Amino acid sequence: VNSSSRKGDRRERELVGELDQRGFAVIRVPASGSGTERELPDLLAGDGGRFYAIEAKASGDDYIYLDREEVAALRHFASKFGAEAIIAARFDYAEWRFYAPASLHRTDGGRYRVKRDDLDDGLPLDALSGGEPF
Amino acid sequence: VNSSSRKGDRRERELVGELDQRGFAVIRVPASGSGTERELPDLLAGDGGRFYAIEAKASGDDYIYLDREEVAALRHFASKFGAEAIIAARFDYAEWRFYAPASLHRTDGGRYRVKRDDLDDGLPLDALSGGEPF
Repeated sequence: VNSSSRKGDRRERELVGELDQRGFAVIRVPASGSGTERELPDLLAGDGGRFYAIEAKASGDDYIYLDREEVAALRHFASKFGAEAIIAARFDYAEWRFYAPASLHRTDGGRYRVKRDDLDDGLPLDALSGGEPF
Repeated sequence: VNSSSRKGDRRERELVGELDQRGFAVIRVPASGSGTERELPDLLAGDGGRFYAIEAKASGDDYIYLDREEVAALRHFASKFGAEAIIAARFDYAEWRFYAPASLHRTDGGRYRVKRDDLDDGLPLDALSGGEPF
């Protein structure tokens, strides 16, 4: 466990706490938590009305990238569970923001990108509890 | 980890494999996987149509007991995730059987009981994929 993943772990736990405060039941999914080979989402969260499979990424840089396979696995999993697939992004000195995968910029190589300068395109935490699906 | 819990762990992994074979995405939830104090279900399983929060119990004896609090937490969790709460019971030399909590016998002390002699009251694994909700 290097310093970067420790920080990511701390950020993820902070997100769990914030979701919990808003009435969500949350599961932190272990990397080895599957019976299968496929990658699993980082978190599952539900409040009785909305249910999310969440890939959570924190970064001290200006960009967050997600591999095509990572997002494909997230979507696959969400569809199996009747959940919405969302990307949670957290840049330093900013709040968590939430994105539907389809709303993200794709690089020429097919990766999904969240840009710090475009944080306002994401939804804030409070939007998860109600309103329109992502 | 004593011999009994190792065996329970093996049984649980077998169940994950059987669910996986039937097209379910499965998560083994770690005991420490929550952001909260409440107990979590052992497994989550979904196949795109049905979604279950599962408490899985294996026993070499003739009875399986579940505490009132354990089942209450399972139900709470299932309701948050829009899932069905089910108890999976596995006696030696028998197949996994599945029960809605409300269908189980309650002891005078309020515990839920699955009796080896009543295994036929439970549903088999193949019933999870279709048919009536539990």
